[in-house]
Parts: sequence; C-alpha cells; structure tokens
Amino acid sequence: MSLSTSVGTSDADSITVMGRDLSKDLMGKTTLSELAFLMVQRRMPSAEETRLFDAVLVSLADHGLTPTVLAARLTYTGAPEALQGAVAAGLLGAGSVFLGVVEDTVRFLDAAGDDVEGGVARELEAGRRIPGLGHPIHKVQDPRTPRIYAIAEETGLTGVYLTRLRAVSAAHAKETGRELPINGAGVAGAALADLGFPAPLLRGFALLARTAGLLGHLAEELQSPMGMRLYREVDERAMYSHPTLRE
Amino acid sequence: MSLSTSVGTSDADSITVMGRDLSKDLMGKTTLSELAFLMVQRRMPSAEETRLFDAVLVSLADHGLTPTVLAARLTYTGAPEALQGAVAAGLLGAGSVFLGVVEDTVRFLDAAGDDVEGGVARELEAGRRIPGLGHPIHKVQDPRTPRIYAIAEETGLTGVYLTRLRAVSAAHAKETGRELPINGAGVAGAALADLGFPAPLLRGFALLARTAGLLGHLAEELQSPMGMRLYREVDERAMYSHPTLRE
Amino acid sequence: MSLSTSVGTSDADSITVMGRDLSKDLMGKTTLSELAFLMVQRRMPSAEETRLFDAVLVSLADHGLTPTVLAARLTYTGAPEALQGAVAAGLLGAGSVFLGVVEDTVRFLDAAGDDVEGGVARELEAGRRIPGLGHPIHKVQDPRTPRIYAIAEETGLTGVYLTRLRAVSAAHAKETGRELPINGAGVAGAALADLGFPAPLLRGFALLARTAGLLGHLAEELQSPMGMRLYREVDERAMYSHPTLRE
Amino acid sequence: MSLSTSVGTSDADSITVMGRDLSKDLMGKTTLSELAFLMVQRRMPSAEETRLFDAVLVSLADHGLTPTVLAARLTYTGAPEALQGAVAAGLLGAGSVFLGVVEDTVRFLDAAGDDVEGGVARELEAGRRIPGLGHPIHKVQDPRTPRIYAIAEETGLTGVYLTRLRAVSAAHAKETGRELPINGAGVAGAALADLGFPAPLLRGFALLARTAGLLGHLAEELQSPMGMRLYREVDERAMYSHPTLRE
Repeated sequence: MSLSTSVGTSDADSITVMGRDLSKDLMGKTTLSELAFLMVQRRMPSAEETRLFDAVLVSLADHGLTPTVLAARLTYTGAPEALQGAVAAGLLGAGSVFLGVVEDTVRFLDAAGDDVEGGVARELEAGRRIPGLGHPIHKVQDPRTPRIYAIAEETGLTGVYLTRLRAVSAAHAKETGRELPINGAGVAGAALADLGFPAPLLRGFALLARTAGLLGHLAEELQSPMGMRLYREVDERAMYSHPTLRE
Repeated sequence: MSLSTSVGTSDADSITVMGRDLSKDLMGKTTLSELAFLMVQRRMPSAEETRLFDAVLVSLADHGLTPTVLAARLTYTGAPEALQGAVAAGLLGAGSVFLGVVEDTVRFLDAAGDDVEGGVARELEAGRRIPGLGHPIHKVQDPRTPRIYAIAEETGLTGVYLTRLRAVSAAHAKETGRELPINGAGVAGAALADLGFPAPLLRGFALLARTAGLLGHLAEELQSPMGMRLYREVDERAMYSHPTLRE
Repeated sequence: MSLSTSVGTSDADSITVMGRDLSKDLMGKTTLSELAFLMVQRRMPSAEETRLFDAVLVSLADHGLTPTVLAARLTYTGAPEALQGAVAAGLLGAGSVFLGVVEDTVRFLDAAGDDVEGGVARELEAGRRIPGLGHPIHKVQDPRTPRIYAIAEETGLTGVYLTRLRAVSAAHAKETGRELPINGAGVAGAALADLGFPAPLLRGFALLARTAGLLGHLAEELQSPMGMRLYREVDERAMYSHPTLRE
Repeated sequence: MSLSTSVGTSDADSITVMGRDLSKDLMGKTTLSELAFLMVQRRMPSAEETRLFDAVLVSLADHGLTPTVLAARLTYTGAPEALQGAVAAGLLGAGSVFLGVVEDTVRFLDAAGDDVEGGVARELEAGRRIPGLGHPIHKVQDPRTPRIYAIAEETGLTGVYLTRLRAVSAAHAKETGRELPINGAGVAGAALADLGFPAPLLRGFALLARTAGLLGHLAEELQSPMGMRLYREVDERAMYSHPTLRE
C-alpha cells in the first residue's frame, strides 16, 4: 500500500508544509489563519480573502458560557493536568444543534440553487426551519451579519452563497410576513463557502475558532474557577425523584 | 452562587468579547491569533508580539503523519458526519510524550531559575532528559529554532525563557560533551512564556495550532482517504499470537 | 429552575442509584451489565434478559485492530498519563460507518414496519444498502448472528425486531437472488431493540462494550506497544507528493 | 514491521477474542465484566473474583450529577446525533481531581510497601493528603467501603492492598488523632489491585463503570432534558465583569 500525502514532510534540515519551507517561507510571514487556509485550500489566500476569513473566524470564536464552554470548564475541573481533554470536550458539543447551522445553511443554499424562493417554500411547507435565519437573542439583527456582508463588499468577495442567503431571508419574509435576521452561524457558513471551502469541512473552521475561545475560558477557569462551584450548586439544588420502578 | 465571567456577554444588539464590541472592534480588525492572545492575556498584542506569536503557532501546526494525525484520520474514517470527533481525537494524544515538551521546557526553566548549569547537572545526575533538547530527525539543528530566535531578536522579544533555554543547551553540551539541538517544541514553549503566557496553558496554543493542521489532514482525508486503507493493511498484516492463558 | 433527576442521590450514610441502595441492594448482587440495564430502563432485567443482553454486549466488545482501536492506541502513545483520552479517542470513531449499523438497522425495521418486503424493495430501488446485511469478512455467515438468535430463542426473547430482521434478509435474497448474511451489528441492534432499548441510545451499548475491548487493547499496548512503531512505519513509508499549488 | 496482537482475530467463519471462540465460548456464557477481566488479565476470573470485580464496577458507576455527567449532558445538548461525543466528553474529566484517587491510592500503597506508618508519616510531613482517605459527603463512613471489604472477606480475596489500606487509615488516625473514612475510590483501587490489575490501567475500570452510568444519565437527558435549561440559567445568571484591560 502506498500512503501518499501532500500535507507535509521533513528531513534532517527542513520541514515542508503544503509545499512550502516551514521555517523560511511560513514562520514569520504568515498568520495561523493564513496557514489554515493554505492547508485546506492548498493555496495562500489573498489579502482580501485573509481579511474576510479572519473576520469569520473571529465572529465564531466565542459566544459566552455556552453548553460547550461549560463542558470544557467542567472537564478541566476534573482533569486540569490534561488540558487537551478539556479542549476536546469543549469541541464535542459542536454538533447539529448549535454549530451545525454553519454547514446546514450552505447545504440548503446548494440544494436550493438559483430557485431560492422555491427552496424556501418547500422547506416551510415541510414544516422545517430555514437554516441560517433567526436567533434567540438577536431577534432583530445579529450584529455579526451586516459586518460580514460589509467586509465581503469591501473585499469584493461577495459570492453566490452570501448573495443567495440574502435572497433566502427576503423569500422567507415574503412567504411568512415575518422578518427573521440572518444569524451569525448562517452568514459565517455562506462566507466560508464563498471563500471556497467545501461544505463537509465548514464545521472545522468553527472548531478552530472555538478552540481560541475555549482557551480564553480555560484561562479564566485557571484564575477564578467556576466549574467546581457550578457542580456543587447543581448537586445541592438537584431534586431527586424516585424512578418509577416497573418490576 | 454568583457565576462571574469577563470573557464575554451579549444583548439584543451587540456581542462583547473581552471588553470589546465583537462586530465593531474585532471583526475585520484582528486576526484569530490576535483574538486568542487577547482572550488569554486580556490585552491586545503589539504588532511585534503578534509576529512572534504567529510564528510560534505556525511552527506548531503540523508535523506530518504523527500519531495524533493518524488518530484523527482513523476517527474520521468511522464517523465522517461528526468532524468534531475527529478533531477531538486528534487533540487527545497531545500529552506528555510529544507536546508535553512545550510545557515541560518552561517548567524546567522556571525550576532552574538563574542557576541553569546547576539545574542541568541535577537533571542529568538524576538520569533524566533535559526537556527541549534533542530531536529524532533534526539531529544537528531543528530548523524552527534559529527562526524563532531570529524573529524574537527582530521584534525585541527575547526574554528570560529564550535566553535561559540557550544557556541550558550550552550547559548540556559542556556537561556531556554532546551537542543536542534545541527542538521546536522547546523553543515554542520558551517563546510563549516570554510572550507572557502561563505554563499551565502553553499546551493550549499547541492545541490551537494543531487544530489548523488537523483541518489540513482531514481535508486531504476527504479528498484521498488514507484511514480505511491504513486500517485494512494493519488488519491484514497483524500477526495473531495466542495469549498465554494462565488458568 | 428545578434540576430534577431520578438517576441517583446520596447523603452522609447512603448512596442511591435508580431507587436502590447502592451498597446494600446493588454491590455484590448485580453485575455491571445488569446495572447498565437498570440505569437505562429503570428496572432490573430478568435472568433471561441479562443472558441475552450480556451476549450482545460480549459480541460487540472487540473486532481486532479496527480504526477505533488504532486511534486509541495511537492516542495512548502520545498521552499515556491520560488513559481517559485514549479511551475517548477510541469511542469517537463509533459513528455512521461502522457502529451506526446497530442503530440504522433498528430505524430501518421501524420504518418498514410489517411491510418488510416493501421496505426492502424501496431501499434497493433507491440504490441504498440494507442496514444489517452483509459483512466484508463473514461473507456466508457472521458467527455472532445464529448465536444471538439461538440465545433469544432459548430465553424466549425473540421479539418483533429479530423476527423482522430475518424477514428482511429473506426479502433481500428473494429480491436480488443474492444471500447476504445478517451481520453482527445488525443482529445486536435488533436484539437490543427487542430488549426494550430506544433507538437513539443503542449506539451507547456498543460504546459500553467497546470500552471493555479498548481496555484489552490498551493493556496490550502497555505491555508490548504497537502505536509508536505503527507511526514510525507510516512516517517512513509515506510518499510525499507536492501539492498542486494553485496560485 | 510485524504488528503482533493477542487480543483477537477473525476469519470467514469465526471470531477469536483472547484465545476463545467468541460465539461458541464467550457469547451466552460470560458477562461483559468477565470479558473485561479476560481481556486485560488474559485469563477468566473465578466466580469469587467476578463477584468482587462486579461489586467494584457497580460501586464506581454513578455518583449523581458530577462535573463529568454535566459535561456529557451538555455535550449531548449540542450534538445529540453523535452519542459517542457525549460519552467521550463524560469520560474526559476522569482525571487527577476525582477518579485519579483510584490509581493514586494504589501507587501510594506500592510506595509505602510494608512500612505503612512511615509512608503515612512522610506524606503528612510533606503536607500532602493521603490518597484514599476522606470524603466530602460521607464524613464518617463511605457506605461502599465496608461492603467491598465484606465481599473481599466472603470471597477470600482480601489481599495486600486492601490490608494495607486499612493499616493506612489506622496509621493516619494514630498520627493525626482524626479518623478519616476510607473512601469509595480508594477501596475500589485497592480491590482492583488485589484482583491483579496493574496501576496504570486502574482508571480504565472506572471509565468502564462510568460509561454505564453515563448511559443512565443520557437516557434521562433524552426523556427529560436538563442540559439546555442548565445552560440557559447559567447564561442568564452570569455576571459579566469587564476585564481589566492592560494596554
């Protein structure tokens, strides 16, 4: 069996990452975001692409004390010596309920194609929610959305996904008479797709951004721990109700 | 119980991350690396700090088909629908054997203090290896090391850790008569410590950088899968030897 | 907010698990399998149910050097001090490709209902594989399948799922003229469903069983490590091909 | 490279696990606990060993709404489609703070050897806690402890570890004038060591037992979810304090 890779290689004197000499061509010249772009797309981003890409990553990094952040902090409480476990636990909740929207939005836009109105109508008829629309807190406007659209305009990177997502929002308003804001996860997915990233990997950039956010939370947990107190409080307040034994 | 956090908050119209307005002050203005620095250190890095920090992150992102990369690819093989699991599996091997060096180097430098020669001598007498020295492939020089030192010089950020690490290498050579190169993990740890990051979180930046690297490998796995073939080959080649049953 | 649970509680003198006194009523009287059944179904299994349940768990515990086992061993190679990480990594690949079959089989049987022939025909027309049928190694018969059916017969626990799965196999043979054995994952899913476990948790029992199997592999890894050698061999054999840079 | 394993193998007609024919010799004849013992110790346990082993596993399975259980439930909240991620997140907190005691107790007993009084005295002088003693809730007696000792007596399996642990408790009381109960984690570790399991794997049995407990909690989460409500409450109650920006 041949095991072939283009990601990288190394010898006694040099390390190669995606065809570049790591120490000469990348270190000191590229940011981590540019490297991530290079590693997935196999080309360096332009300055404009970097600006939009970083804006998307920054928008996805933190959302406060989310379930995934709490999972990471509680895991750190039990195993502070294994930071990798706390970070991993904080990523594992990045599934269908929250971060899946990043991907679902793009898959919906792919499926709808040019017939955005028809796609929205079919989805609503089927009683499904339109991915990328609506937010429990940002009910009128998600502040990330106009910012991503503005940066995409400035950089000339508004592509088919960002354009279609706006049309989706309009079609939804027309169909239902109810304005739902494009949410931050939806606009992030559309922008990443316009930057050329494939749908099955979109969630990965949310994971990358979230890792930065998790480090912020774990730094705070190290200084002023919340995990143990949260656990103790839950433990004290928990109401135990006898299971209805069926035997 | 009060649950207090400074990481972030949000209301209907705005999202705050580390005291900044996410959409106005961060998106479009900062890179993911700068955000990670801000989240952990609670201040924005200078341009010089950003340059050194990105160089360190870029140096840590990928090392080819490492055990952790193989774990991520094999996990993706079984559960491609849950990318977060593959990334998490790829982080979980970042423990004492490989990435622990980033942290161990700094802890050793902290313990040695100004008496670097004494610290090295005690460690060698105890039959232990000096963390941060030596590399199985880069036997003469790890190409990342001079690059980090050069960038630290250029940016005026050579601090006590990078300085001491060089003294450790010299003391080791003097004591043993054998030159061992400062390795990439060791120099990364020293540079991160000089940038002001605390020892218990250093591993976290390796995790952040590795997440970018893992995305590169998973993108390749998506295009030209290696996991299933690797498994099949191992399965075919595995020599089964009957356990010596002790009953 | 009330946080209500029936799983357990404790006070200074006693610990309660699912309504039972842990030290008096469970320890020394029940096996781990019986406890797992109790915790999910909220009742103790009968002796017959325990026998079938243990047979299913035992059948799922190990399948040799699978991708998930390799991921666990490779993770242990990097972080032997954090065994929980190696076990977690070994579970994270239990997704759609391999273990998902346990669940998919039951969902297919639920969807088909009494019209097994119709369900099989529709699935084949749609070009999909029937979950629970076929095995890459056990091409004629999976040895676990007749054993589970025999134990279900002996214990009087052959229910609608095991019955339907046999009908599925017959319908498939009739429709395609090709006999595919019922595989071990499929029969395990059907037996667990007949034991009363809900579809969304079926994968959980595979995880429980696999944890036992992973401990066996990690015990072997501790004695005669394979992870580091596997990595080194892959690293040596890997063919590096320059990425086609698109700039 | 030869990849050698004794864990298992399979061919077209049979599956071998630890030298036994899976379908003929194990399924229907052994419990999951017996299989776990076999896989790690490479021999079947006696009936007495099985009884003590199951008692230990059952004692470790659940401790209510612990940090690890909360991490699993919160992860399930975000990614219910990937149960393996929730279970993995629930295992990752099994580190030094809580479950490490199982292992630490045995390592301490190994280090103390026959000089239990000396070992205890040295540990107390060094200002360290004696692993295996004391419990925040079971201040007078941990109900699991006398039960494990009683079953070990009944089965004739009280070995050097259980014996020494009692001596440790007595030495501690003599030295400090303060009676601390032997806790459940400590007695579990000692019993597992007396059953012949090696220290580096002891944590693994806690993980196995906890997986059963996690399934109970996730089954409850499926029926009456707590994760989303816990998150929302934390989010609402969280007091945001502006980080002291240091620029």
